[in-house]
Amino acid sequence: MIFERHDRTRTHDILVDETLFVTQNRYLGVRGNFEEGVPLSGSIRGTYVNGVYETHPIVYAEKVYGDPEIGQTIVNVPDAQTIVVMVEGRPLDLAHAELESLTRRYHLEDGFAERIAVYCTTSGHRLRLTYKRMAHLKRTNLFVIDASIESLTHDLDVEIVSKLQGDVRNYEAKDDSRAGSMYAEKLDTPKLQVREDAGHVRVKTRNTQFELFVGITHDTPFSYRIEGSSVIATKPVRLKKNTPFHFQKYVGTYDSIHHIQLEMAFDDLCNQLKFTSLKQLYTEQKAALASFNQLARVSLDDGTDRKTETMIRYNLYQLYTAAPLTSDTSIPAKGLSGEGYEGHIFWDTEIYLLPFFMHIEQETAERLLEYRYQQLPRARIEAKRLGVDEGAKFAWRTINGAETSGYYPAGSAQYHINCDIAYAMIKYWQLFQDGKHLKEKIMPVLLETARFFKQVVHEQNGVYHLHHVTGPDEYSALIDNNYYTNSLLKYQLTFLVEKLEALKTPGVSLEEHNQFKAIAKRIRLPYDDTLDIDLQDEQFLSRKPWNIETTPETMRPLILHYHPLVIYRHQVLKQPDTILSHMLLQDRPTSVMRNSYAFYEKQTTHDSSLSYCVHAIQAARLGDLDTAQKYFDYTARLDVDNVQKNTQHGLHMANMGGTHLVLTKGFLGYTIDEQVSLWPKLPASWRHLNMVIRLDAKTLCTVDVTHARTVLTADHDATCHVYGQAIQLKQHEPCTLKQPLRE
Amino acid sequence: MIFERHDRTRTHDILVDETLFVTQNRYLGVRGNFEEGVPLSGSIRGTYVNGVYETHPIVYAEKVYGDPEIGQTIVNVPDAQTIVVMVEGRPLDLAHAELESLTRRYHLEDGFAERIAVYCTTSGHRLRLTYKRMAHLKRTNLFVIDASIESLTHDLDVEIVSKLQGDVRNYEAKDDSRAGSMYAEKLDTPKLQVREDAGHVRVKTRNTQFELFVGITHDTPFSYRIEGSSVIATKPVRLKKNTPFHFQKYVGTYDSIHHIQLEMAFDDLCNQLKFTSLKQLYTEQKAALASFNQLARVSLDDGTDRKTETMIRYNLYQLYTAAPLTSDTSIPAKGLSGEGYEGHIFWDTEIYLLPFFMHIEQETAERLLEYRYQQLPRARIEAKRLGVDEGAKFAWRTINGAETSGYYPAGSAQYHINCDIAYAMIKYWQLFQDGKHLKEKIMPVLLETARFFKQVVHEQNGVYHLHHVTGPDEYSALIDNNYYTNSLLKYQLTFLVEKLEALKTPGVSLEEHNQFKAIAKRIRLPYDDTLDIDLQDEQFLSRKPWNIETTPETMRPLILHYHPLVIYRHQVLKQPDTILSHMLLQDRPTSVMRNSYAFYEKQTTHDSSLSYCVHAIQAARLGDLDTAQKYFDYTARLDVDNVQKNTQHGLHMANMGGTHLVLTKGFLGYTIDEQVSLWPKLPASWRHLNMVIRLDAKTLCTVDVTHARTVLTADHDATCHVYGQAIQLKQHEPCTLKQPLRE
Repeated sequence: MIFERHDRTRTHDILVDETLFVTQNRYLGVRGNFEEGVPLSGSIRGTYVNGVYETHPIVYAEKVYGDPEIGQTIVNVPDAQTIVVMVEGRPLDLAHAELESLTRRYHLEDGFAERIAVYCTTSGHRLRLTYKRMAHLKRTNLFVIDASIESLTHDLDVEIVSKLQGDVRNYEAKDDSRAGSMYAEKLDTPKLQVREDAGHVRVKTRNTQFELFVGITHDTPFSYRIEGSSVIATKPVRLKKNTPFHFQKYVGTYDSIHHIQLEMAFDDLCNQLKFTSLKQLYTEQKAALASFNQLARVSLDDGTDRKTETMIRYNLYQLYTAAPLTSDTSIPAKGLSGEGYEGHIFWDTEIYLLPFFMHIEQETAERLLEYRYQQLPRARIEAKRLGVDEGAKFAWRTINGAETSGYYPAGSAQYHINCDIAYAMIKYWQLFQDGKHLKEKIMPVLLETARFFKQVVHEQNGVYHLHHVTGPDEYSALIDNNYYTNSLLKYQLTFLVEKLEALKTPGVSLEEHNQFKAIAKRIRLPYDDTLDIDLQDEQFLSRKPWNIETTPETMRPLILHYHPLVIYRHQVLKQPDTILSHMLLQDRPTSVMRNSYAFYEKQTTHDSSLSYCVHAIQAARLGDLDTAQKYFDYTARLDVDNVQKNTQHGLHMANMGGTHLVLTKGFLGYTIDEQVSLWPKLPASWRHLNMVIRLDAKTLCTVDVTHARTVLTADHDATCHVYGQAIQLKQHEPCTLKQPLRE
Repeated sequence: MIFERHDRTRTHDILVDETLFVTQNRYLGVRGNFEEGVPLSGSIRGTYVNGVYETHPIVYAEKVYGDPEIGQTIVNVPDAQTIVVMVEGRPLDLAHAELESLTRRYHLEDGFAERIAVYCTTSGHRLRLTYKRMAHLKRTNLFVIDASIESLTHDLDVEIVSKLQGDVRNYEAKDDSRAGSMYAEKLDTPKLQVREDAGHVRVKTRNTQFELFVGITHDTPFSYRIEGSSVIATKPVRLKKNTPFHFQKYVGTYDSIHHIQLEMAFDDLCNQLKFTSLKQLYTEQKAALASFNQLARVSLDDGTDRKTETMIRYNLYQLYTAAPLTSDTSIPAKGLSGEGYEGHIFWDTEIYLLPFFMHIEQETAERLLEYRYQQLPRARIEAKRLGVDEGAKFAWRTINGAETSGYYPAGSAQYHINCDIAYAMIKYWQLFQDGKHLKEKIMPVLLETARFFKQVVHEQNGVYHLHHVTGPDEYSALIDNNYYTNSLLKYQLTFLVEKLEALKTPGVSLEEHNQFKAIAKRIRLPYDDTLDIDLQDEQFLSRKPWNIETTPETMRPLILHYHPLVIYRHQVLKQPDTILSHMLLQDRPTSVMRNSYAFYEKQTTHDSSLSYCVHAIQAARLGDLDTAQKYFDYTARLDVDNVQKNTQHGLHMANMGGTHLVLTKGFLGYTIDEQVSLWPKLPASWRHLNMVIRLDAKTLCTVDVTHARTVLTADHDATCHVYGQAIQLKQHEPCTLKQPLRE
């Protein structure tokens, strides 16, 4: 299955494709930059190691008490991508030659990206450069560039210059905090060394003092030398017309958080590579993807809708390869594909990304939650920063667990991060039923996050209120009783109270237990009975409606064109809020969910990439399959077609997870509760859907859906609900269920 | 009348007294720094010229659309204060000698400050330094240090070193935006020049490119030389025991905003001074204060309460000398006494300072309003920044008219600045009845500020709402229908509609006129009928009450110890909001004002210096004279006793104006409407109050109050209301009115 693009040679398209053709292997991500560089353009050249970040002081225009003082940014590590072919003493690149054709391919099942560029020099030489790139999924410190250089016109003497640049900077984005960091200098002076067959650079992050080691070698002899802050490896080559010259560049990357003796590890790698054929590396790569290729396969209309299938697989591939290998980090909002949001980790992980891994790779799902568990001590500090002596409040955006949000109305005020994490842990527990994990990891998090809220809520006439918070929709800020937050809090507390009783958790007084119970029962959930809708917040209906239709495209997204005071005083949504609660909890009468959907959808700009997939799911759940498909299309192609116009800064990981969510939660009606339930139904234009889901800790199940029926084939005996009926599945025995005429 | 302090030699007291003994003359302010310096302490050495500011880029942690990008800061200009007496080669200062005694006096009627320091050196020499300082009120570019050096023990050879330092920096306050600027470097490299009898420095502000010229000369020969960035003037002197050596240092300060040919102006000054005796300068200074001394005189208990009288006069003196000479600037929050709030101008001017000048100096009152009128074009830009295409929104904090607030929840969101300016202009009109001024200056401001609101309000079911704003009390932010803002808006619009009709103002359509009328009539004013109080905002009562009594002193002011999210979700006030509206408008039933006062007073921390005086006034108006006096005492001594603990960063000008407001609006019940009304009443511990007020454009009136009666003596025939009755006053004829038993 190959994702392919042709002749996208305009500056902006090159930038977007740098993101789209990122190669990630969970440890590192290398943007799909041109090996030869893109002279004079705004190329964002970057390689990122998950978990390696630098800190900087956060400067405020007017600092308020408690504003976080230290920012964190993922680090652009030394760049080993560069390979330049020198023709007649000049580099073969856009500044010196014409790019006649450009083909980029992502070999999704094989795990590598390919770029074929044909350049024509002013002196009439035509050359084809073919670069295959593989961030190795088994040997996770290894990045391979498999190169092929071919002269199409004459025999030709060229020099190949392969580079490792030590003095890299981060991308600087002073005015748009969504794009990158304000400070580009992250690394101290690099130390370089070369030997006969390799060269390397060692460098430290300035404040965090993480050491980075990047080494390069090639499968064929090069001359290595140091020039400035770079290792330069050169090789003169006589190209025979139409006879490609092949070679491989191997890059080893190591950091002092995850490795000891970095240089020795690189030497080991070099030795291994001497006895490892390129073919073996490709074979290993495909083997590492075997489980993914099997479990993330989504078949649509028996393969006739290859375009959609490819987009889905592309999204899931990038998501899969962005998962962390260790629990000291998680999945940044942009994965390892760019510097947008500075590599920070948000609620995206729990609400949008985790479900996919719960289906196909439990240990990764567990690791994502373990990351939060390990941050609990930091979250306790965070609660104190927010004036709450008890409990824990997770950071809105962070790498190391400390809050780095510099604008609290759309940052620290989003208390719902606590509920999102709790919700995810509850769902994890319900699916995997790991009692030890529940007791040791989940309960402490549920308890501490609940304690934070216990202090913050305000009881008035027996009703509990949560004032001056911001929900997921950041186009309303600092409002009262956000429906999303309160409803998820109710869900979390209800589960907590039940488990406290069942597990007899120590350290919880009867009084505290009763407090949790009372809040769970009587927390305010704003509702309007005239409209029969749940209200996003206490103030929502009083706001002036915003006319999205008359707002020109040039004024979108609103947040980049209107002062927050304007946006906040209007009825307008960036992304679903109440609808998201309904989507996650499915706990309200259908009429309320239907009315709410109709009401809020009209007011939603989808300025957030976290919006479409939720609308798709909830539309599907409510039976509006045309709308569901419309939003699914936006979701699936969001990065591929640069719908949000900022894919150059990185992939929208949450939306990629959203692709899977729409299929499972939306079209399959997949719900985890005490058991898994399904209610598959397809949009009119699809005839057939086939994919794999998880029913419980040990059971995976193939679901095959047409408009008439659903066939389930589980790999173990299992039970679930389908179309409202309890079903017993026998191992490997297909079970066919007719789709009912109505829900 | 002399304000005096003794032996305040502790570091912190020295800092506070640097502010208290500032000498201002409307053009410049020189902090009361030790001439000899305060080695190793945190002395804030400063001289400021009103209207001379420097800009800097405002850096945001996360910038949002429309955040102001350019900050403004009043500039610390070259320092000419330094005079060091060298004894046995060492400076006579705190690092090299013991400060045996220290007396500081402010000669309030004569307009100069005096400092007498007796130092004892380790070698046993005792010297008395006496420095009188005068920022000349007639020759406003002239600052005089009248020095006297006396050896108390032996005949002694000393050297006097008098300095002019060109390379000064601003005070740096990275963490507390209330204290100063984040950037200390404001000036480029100074250019120095000396001649036989003088020396000077020229320097430019780096971005604004304002030129500053400061020259020094002395009444007696000194040797002038340049050393680094300073002009050094020295003079060897043989002191005869107990025979003081007298000399004067003259400083001329000029800036390129208010002057042309700066150097020539200084030369002129030097020439004038050759023919002007010191005595004449003192005489002129007193003459310049004649009107102030007469009109700002407040006599209390026939002179037996000299302490209170002195504090009152001290406050009014500093306020009087802080007023601007030109309408390109106004009165910064700290006057010209320090760098707190970066020299910015706030609503303080209109609500707290203007009334004093309306009583005693019309041209200054008019100038303060002219400053706003001239800013109207900037205010139109500001409206657009806030997403409003029509009308004008004045900057919350500014020097040049552009918004510099870097934290909009307690900045740009305070739309009430528009209403404050409108209110002040209406009161000005009501008192002075200048029809031309109304038509040409006031109406454009009233109209444009109203147009801004016309766009921002939201009509729902015939009621107009103003959402997501912040009122004067910054401990609630971004709330709906702030009572203060809405009630002042109603007042402003009612007046506007009436005058539009009367003046037939062109450019206002019937539709617009009707819109103003509708908003004026039906703007929402939140009220709770159970408590019979006006509600600070729509959300106020729903908030959790804050227990001020159990909040430790160490956690005050709250804003420096709690995250805004904590403060904002509680019922707690920094300063009056609803009570301020009642105080200004006096338009509500007494029961509502009384209940509101009782309700909000309990919840008010007075963390703002703008709080006490309003409570004093409203308590007096409601007949609670004991409480009124308690708050008046806080008001009168707020800077003198450093009640807010930050007087070192500058005087609290608004509170100084508040002192006069309590006397007039509070104890005299002075109200401007169609006519002036009075309802004098004294607190129990006062027997007698005598002061001057204004009744109309031409009439000043002495009010003499005892508990039994009030005697009015006007300088023209005039009418007013006293104790609810219309009174006709005959020129110079005392009119006695008995105080009624009850209102």
